Amino acid sequence: MTQTTSLQDSPRSAERAADSRPLYRQLADQYRRAIGNGVLRPGDRMPSMRAFMQRHSVSLATATESYRVLERAALIDARPRAGYFVRVPPAAALPAAAEPDAADLALQPGAAQFVGIHSTISAIVSTYRRYPDALNLGGSTASPDLYPTAALQKTALRALRRQPTLLTAAGHDHGDPALRAVIARRVLEAGIQIGADDVIMTHGGIEAMNLALRAVTQPGDTVAVESPCFFGLLQALESLGLRALEIPASPSTGLAVEALAFALQTHPDIKAVVVVPHLQNPLGSVMPDAHKARLVELCSQAGIALIEDDPYRELVDAASSPRSLKAWDTDGTVIHCTSFNKTLAPGLRVGWINGGRWHARVGMLKFAQSRHNEPLAQVVLAEFLETSAYERHLRRLRDRLRIQRERMAAAIAASFPDGTRFTPPGGGMFFWIELPREVSSSAFFEAALLDGIRVMPGTVYSNAGRFDHFIRLSCPSTDIELADEAVRKLGRLATRMAAHAKTP
Amino acid sequence: MTQTTSLQDSPRSAERAADSRPLYRQLADQYRRAIGNGVLRPGDRMPSMRAFMQRHSVSLATATESYRVLERAALIDARPRAGYFVRVPPAAALPAAAEPDAADLALQPGAAQFVGIHSTISAIVSTYRRYPDALNLGGSTASPDLYPTAALQKTALRALRRQPTLLTAAGHDHGDPALRAVIARRVLEAGIQIGADDVIMTHGGIEAMNLALRAVTQPGDTVAVESPCFFGLLQALESLGLRALEIPASPSTGLAVEALAFALQTHPDIKAVVVVPHLQNPLGSVMPDAHKARLVELCSQAGIALIEDDPYRELVDAASSPRSLKAWDTDGTVIHCTSFNKTLAPGLRVGWINGGRWHARVGMLKFAQSRHNEPLAQVVLAEFLETSAYERHLRRLRDRLRIQRERMAAAIAASFPDGTRFTPPGGGMFFWIELPREVSSSAFFEAALLDGIRVMPGTVYSNAGRFDHFIRLSCPSTDIELADEAVRKLGRLATRMAAHAKTP
Repeated sequence: MTQTTSLQDSPRSAERAADSRPLYRQLADQYRRAIGNGVLRPGDRMPSMRAFMQRHSVSLATATESYRVLERAALIDARPRAGYFVRVPPAAALPAAAEPDAADLALQPGAAQFVGIHSTISAIVSTYRRYPDALNLGGSTASPDLYPTAALQKTALRALRRQPTLLTAAGHDHGDPALRAVIARRVLEAGIQIGADDVIMTHGGIEAMNLALRAVTQPGDTVAVESPCFFGLLQALESLGLRALEIPASPSTGLAVEALAFALQTHPDIKAVVVVPHLQNPLGSVMPDAHKARLVELCSQAGIALIEDDPYRELVDAASSPRSLKAWDTDGTVIHCTSFNKTLAPGLRVGWINGGRWHARVGMLKFAQSRHNEPLAQVVLAEFLETSAYERHLRRLRDRLRIQRERMAAAIAASFPDGTRFTPPGGGMFFWIELPREVSSSAFFEAALLDGIRVMPGTVYSNAGRFDHFIRLSCPSTDIELADEAVRKLGRLATRMAAHAKTP
Repeated sequence: MTQTTSLQDSPRSAERAADSRPLYRQLADQYRRAIGNGVLRPGDRMPSMRAFMQRHSVSLATATESYRVLERAALIDARPRAGYFVRVPPAAALPAAAEPDAADLALQPGAAQFVGIHSTISAIVSTYRRYPDALNLGGSTASPDLYPTAALQKTALRALRRQPTLLTAAGHDHGDPALRAVIARRVLEAGIQIGADDVIMTHGGIEAMNLALRAVTQPGDTVAVESPCFFGLLQALESLGLRALEIPASPSTGLAVEALAFALQTHPDIKAVVVVPHLQNPLGSVMPDAHKARLVELCSQAGIALIEDDPYRELVDAASSPRSLKAWDTDGTVIHCTSFNKTLAPGLRVGWINGGRWHARVGMLKFAQSRHNEPLAQVVLAEFLETSAYERHLRRLRDRLRIQRERMAAAIAASFPDGTRFTPPGGGMFFWIELPREVSSSAFFEAALLDGIRVMPGTVYSNAGRFDHFIRLSCPSTDIELADEAVRKLGRLATRMAAHAKTP
């Protein structure tokens, strides 16, 4: 009888009788063994109480007691509304990533640079395109099976049947009125008080970001950004002829606000600050409320725009819904940009922007740049967001991403070499991993592709050449086994590369 | 017996017998009377031969002869593949619009100006928004009933059923591969030889135009444009901080190419020329091939970009398919921009661009600005364009627009005051009408709204204050009666305003 079978059937009466211990202990031991020898792996879901009772023909009292034993032994965890899961060994085996140091915090004036990241990114893209079959741990959206594919499809079919002219009638300036009204209601939970007219729909969050930058800067101006910084923002800055001033960010609390305060004193030419307050890409950091308040105050006092890029807020693992920077805005300093691309539907390019005191200019630029968005996607979204299905989906998505992150964290801790550091993110799907100093992320990126795995090298997250020994891993797939195996492969690769570098 | 009834039933045998003339003449006379007293109106479709034979219980020979009589009397016209229509009285009652004069052609250096059209347009938009019920003769897309609404709806439903993850899987960089391949095949008829990789999908033609301008200019640069010029282009120039140099355009042949040649000599700072070769908005002009060839040659020699904005090519009324400027391009001088917004589906924001020798830069800018387009609309388009349905739709659309234009031209000729001039457009839906000098188009615009009709005043088609006594009318609705009535109202208004202005 294999271990797997032993989990699916009840122990035979003869075996039960031969064992003098209480039945709940016998069952708990059986699961303990399964976890110990890897039949059940960290993050796996335990049977529901009901299933456990049926499978082993035991009472609720026995089932409850078995789970209590496993829980006390730190082998399984209860998760609210989700059930029990095999516990993931704490990732404390790896030290947390370094916090920005004092030298970083005291930036020297003159450090703002015109952005020139495009050729680096192009080289990376053209390299990984040569490996189309590589497992993608370098992406930034999850796979369709993490999203409510069937429900959205149904909503779209219904909308098309009900409104036959959805494809042939022109849409509304600034976007579908019903969607903008739903959005204005929904963002109350982020502490944002706006009306439908304060919402302009955009082609994804990236168009929102471009419009925000265009509204408040001229080519040659300086924009303060977090370091490390999402490479898409660096590309936008480059394409608009802007300079980036990289402000250090903490892997746990995000932008170092006091470093920004210092930079604002020494760089009077800063026209805007761009911040991802929740699950910063690539850090996964979440700004504490006190930092948010201070940041908004700083920018307001300096009279510059604070551009909030907030597409991951709803993926934060927290008891209560985090508040956006915009919640602290009293004078229109904050331009709020976000999208539904990461949280709901990567196939819909729907984002939105509130332009703060530059809202009218943002509206003009959006009209001049690309007119209104297509009606169909917006009608589907409006309908979906009106129901409780979106909230249910978000809870499920957060749960599934947490399981994936825990598995991945365990695999990283188990297989990467000494000298590797990372801080577990506060939600979402990114791991920002510091490799041993001697491992170049560019070389690692190329070697990983040869191993059939795509990662993002750290070089694209800075315009100033920082982070060459960092990589960003994402856990976008629900095929946990595959990702697990890939991470272990990457760990072995990093170990070999670190050892090789040390060999004289 | 009313005239209407007399058309639907056969003359009674007693009447036929009483009339000694041949039956085909009696029937022809009956229709002549119906046309004469307005029961049948210019542009109305005549019964098919088969319907005529059945209705009047006559032979094919009699039916054919009746139509021949009416045709010889210039009362009806045969249209290939469409049948017979009541002839529209030639609009020659009104003189053609003025051609650019010599003074216009010899532009003085230094005439390039930073564009500041936004406040003018905003004022117009906020004015007409106060009249939401006004009949819109100021729009630039036709109403959904001129487009294949049901067929596109069906295609979209099918695509969604077949590809459930259309909304939740991320799309392709540069756009859907199948669509880009269909486009590359289709544009062969425009004389454009490109592959799928040379096509980048955009959010409508306006995003394509923005990308083209961004690829070849820096803020402060000068761009040569046609005068009059589509206000959307002027808005794009303004939002990008560019200067416009307005080059005169002829109402029949478009851009005055020799005026451009002169401007290129006197303005060495021109970085790009933007031209709408087919059915220029608002002129409705179509460039002759010789002009196209010369224009491409000029730009190539000057080493500047020729940006071709070509969304109306397929609406040109011509025996053969017109060739785009890009067909004459041998060295990547021409950036080709177009969309399916005007020809197929105003509810789809799908355009595309070929960036000529700036193609890679255009691709980078598109990615940085808004990533890829949504997959759904592209999949629908690819499927629809693969079939013959698109060609059939275009033929029908051109026919219906022609009927509308003829009716509208007749109404304009019949009701506008002396001093009104216009050149019938070569297709599409725009009329560029020169009012008597003493009528201000801004005042006319406001007065027309009070009469329940929206028009576009000429002031928004120039950054240099030209065209104040011009208006653009469009014939976007299939409700011909309503449009007819509205045009007559506008004619009476213009007559009153012209008379009033002359009164001392």
